[in-house]
Amino acid sequence: MDHTTLNNTQASASPADRPLRLVILGATGSIGRSTLDIVAREPERFEVVALVADRNAAALAGLARSVRAGFAALASEDRGAELAAALAGSGIACGAGAGAVLDAVLRPADMVVAAIVGSAGLTPTFAAVAAGRTVALANKECLVCAGELFMGEARRTGATVLPVDSEHNAIFQVLETHNAAEVEKIILTASGGPFRRLSLEAMRTVTAEQALKHPNWDMGSRISIDSATLMNKGLEVIEASHLFPVRHDQLEVLVHPQSVVHGLVQYRDGSLLAQMGAPDMRTPIAHCLAFPQRMAVPVRRLDLASLGTLTFERPDTARFPALRLALEAMRAGGGAPAALNAADEEAVAAFLAGRLGFLDIAAVVEEVLGRLEGQGQLGRPESIPVALDVDRAARAAAREAIARRQR
Amino acid sequence: MDHTTLNNTQASASPADRPLRLVILGATGSIGRSTLDIVAREPERFEVVALVADRNAAALAGLARSVRAGFAALASEDRGAELAAALAGSGIACGAGAGAVLDAVLRPADMVVAAIVGSAGLTPTFAAVAAGRTVALANKECLVCAGELFMGEARRTGATVLPVDSEHNAIFQVLETHNAAEVEKIILTASGGPFRRLSLEAMRTVTAEQALKHPNWDMGSRISIDSATLMNKGLEVIEASHLFPVRHDQLEVLVHPQSVVHGLVQYRDGSLLAQMGAPDMRTPIAHCLAFPQRMAVPVRRLDLASLGTLTFERPDTARFPALRLALEAMRAGGGAPAALNAADEEAVAAFLAGRLGFLDIAAVVEEVLGRLEGQGQLGRPESIPVALDVDRAARAAAREAIARRQR
Repeated sequence: MDHTTLNNTQASASPADRPLRLVILGATGSIGRSTLDIVAREPERFEVVALVADRNAAALAGLARSVRAGFAALASEDRGAELAAALAGSGIACGAGAGAVLDAVLRPADMVVAAIVGSAGLTPTFAAVAAGRTVALANKECLVCAGELFMGEARRTGATVLPVDSEHNAIFQVLETHNAAEVEKIILTASGGPFRRLSLEAMRTVTAEQALKHPNWDMGSRISIDSATLMNKGLEVIEASHLFPVRHDQLEVLVHPQSVVHGLVQYRDGSLLAQMGAPDMRTPIAHCLAFPQRMAVPVRRLDLASLGTLTFERPDTARFPALRLALEAMRAGGGAPAALNAADEEAVAAFLAGRLGFLDIAAVVEEVLGRLEGQGQLGRPESIPVALDVDRAARAAAREAIARRQR
Repeated sequence: MDHTTLNNTQASASPADRPLRLVILGATGSIGRSTLDIVAREPERFEVVALVADRNAAALAGLARSVRAGFAALASEDRGAELAAALAGSGIACGAGAGAVLDAVLRPADMVVAAIVGSAGLTPTFAAVAAGRTVALANKECLVCAGELFMGEARRTGATVLPVDSEHNAIFQVLETHNAAEVEKIILTASGGPFRRLSLEAMRTVTAEQALKHPNWDMGSRISIDSATLMNKGLEVIEASHLFPVRHDQLEVLVHPQSVVHGLVQYRDGSLLAQMGAPDMRTPIAHCLAFPQRMAVPVRRLDLASLGTLTFERPDTARFPALRLALEAMRAGGGAPAALNAADEEAVAAFLAGRLGFLDIAAVVEEVLGRLEGQGQLGRPESIPVALDVDRAARAAAREAIARRQR
C-alpha cells in the first residue's frame, strides 16, 4: 500500500528523530506478547507509553517492568491493588477499571496496538480512533460489529488504521491505494481447516478435539473452531470489506492448505500480487510497527524450494455454510455481522463444551440471524453501545437456540 | 516499487492532462506489437511520436498508419525508399539509417519503449537514456553488455528505467525502493525449460527441435534455447544486478515450472512479496506504460484454484552450467557479461543449425570467456563502442571454438 496516499497522521507514526511511542491494548495476549517481543529486540526504536490487560496483574506487571512502560492498566477494577503491589518500587504508574484503560488509550502516543480480544476491545479501540491515533488493529470485533462506525470515525478524525491480522496485512502490503480503481479482486486465503476434505455427513459427528487441530497456526480455541467451519474466513471478509476500497463482489476466498500465501490483490492489468511468509504473527505486527518502513524480525524465512508445492482450491459453501452466512451478513450490513459474530461465539463455546454438534454451529447462527431480522433488530447500529446491544441480543438468542437443541 | 522515490522525470512520464507521448524502438517485433496492441485499445491515452524497426518497411508502414505515428524510421538505410512509398499520402514523416533512428529516439516524448532485439539496441537505447528519457527497457544487451555504463548514464541524466521483461517487471512491482535496505533477497523464477528433469548424459544428444519446446511462453528461438540451458535466467540475473539496489549474493534463481509467479522480493521482516500472472507480455508492458498508475489489459486472468498446484525447486548448476557461467560473469563484471552473451548467441545459432551439441553451448561460452580473460580483453568497457568491441571479439572467438569442435 502506498504510504503517500495515507493521511498526515502517518507522519507522526514513524518519527525519524525519536522512538515510536506505543500503547498496547491486550498486552498479555498473544498479539500483545509478540509485539513486546519485537519491541524488546530494538528498545531504542520504541517507547512503551502504556500497557493494558484484562485482569492478569502479575503478567502485566512483569511485562511493564521488562519494557519500562510508562503506565499499566487493568480493565478489571478489582485487580487494581494487586497490580499496584506488583509494580511497587518500579516507578511505573498504574490503574484499574474502564477509566484507567481510557487514560492509557489517550496518553500521547504515535500508535495504539489494539489487540484486546472480543467485544471488550470495541470501546477502547474506538476511543483511540476518535482521538485520531494511528491504530494497529488486531481486534476483529471493531470491524465486524461496528465497521461503518469505526471507519467513519477514522475518516472524521484522520486516524490511520493498519491491519495486523495476517491476511489483511498481506493484502495491505500489496494494495496500491493510489491504484484502488484498478483493483479487480482482493483474495483472502484460508487453510480450509482440519475438515477440508470431510463430507457433510462425516462433519456431523466430529469432536472439539478434532476441530482444534489447526494445520498451520497455533491459535486460541474459538478461532480454531472458526477456522474449521470457515466462519473465521467469513469474518475476515467482512473486516476486509471495511478496510479496503472495493465492492463486496470483489472480495474472494481461496482455500490454500499450506497457509503461506496470506493474501492477494489482482489488478486490471492482469497482475496478481501476493504476500507470503511463514506463519508467524511477528511479521505482520512488525510491518505495522515500522510502516511505511520495514524492520528486521527473526522469524523463520519461507523457503519455497524446500516447501516444494503450494495448492489452491475454491471453498465449498455447501459443506461450509458458515462462510455463506458470513457473506450474506456482510451484504445485509447493519447489525447482521455483529449478530453473526456473537451467535457464533456462543455456539462455538457450546460446541467446545460438548453441548452442540459441529454442524449445529452454523445452524444456530442462521437461526439467530433469522430471528433478530424478523424482530427488526438488525438495523444499522448508530453507536458503539447500540452495536454492543445487538451483540447481547444475539448472544441471548443463541443461548436459547442452543438450549432448545439440547432438550 | 514506490514511485515517490523515483526521480522527477517520472512526473513527465505520466502526464495527467494529455496523452503519453511514446517512441517505440523495435515496433515490428513481439514487444513492439504487444505495445501497439495496448495503445490501440486506448488511443486517447497515448500519442505515438515515432516508430522504429530494422528493415521491414511494409510492416512498419502498416503499424505507423494504424496508430497515426508522427514519424517512422528503419535502421536499414537501403529500405528508405520502400518505406517512403509505403507511407505515401499518409502524412507520416519517415527516414532510414542510423541518423533517422536517432532522430526518432530524440523526438520529444514521455517514454521510449526500447524493444530492439540484440546488440543493435545498445546505441539507440543509450541515446534515449543520455537524453534523460523514461525508458521502458526490453532490450537485454543494454544491461548485460553495458550495465554499468547504462545505469551510470541514467543516474547522470536522471532518466528513469522501467523494466519490461516479465521477471524484472514482477520484481519492480513488489520492490519498495524506500525500503531497499530492508530487502533480503530478490528471486527470479525460471521455468526450468524442457530438460529440467534430464540427466547430463541425456542432454548430450538433445536436438534443437526438442529444445525449442518451451513449456509456457511462446518465444523466439534464441531465448527458447537459452531457457533450456538456463543461460537466459543467468542473463536476467545480470540484468537484475544492475536494475535493483542489492548485492550479487542477494539475487537468487528459483525453478518454478508453471511460470506464473514471475518474481519475488523477500524483506527482513519475513515478508515475501510476489507478482504473478498469466504468461502474457502485455501485463508488464502495460505496467510500464501506466506506471505509477495501472491500466486495464484484456489478458487472461490467473485463476489459482483452476491451476491448483504451484511447484518450486532449486536450480541445479551442475546440470545447467550456463547458469553458473552467467553468475560467474556477473561477479567478474567488466567485459565478461558482454562476452558471455555474445559467445552464447553464436553457440546457440550453431546448435540451432545442427553444428553444435546442446552441452557444447556452455562449453563454448566457457572457453571463450577463458580465452578473452587470458588475453586481457575483459576489462571494464569505457563506452558503448568498446562494449560492442568486446561483443565482436567474443563472437569471433566463439566461431573459432565452434569450428574447432566440428573438425
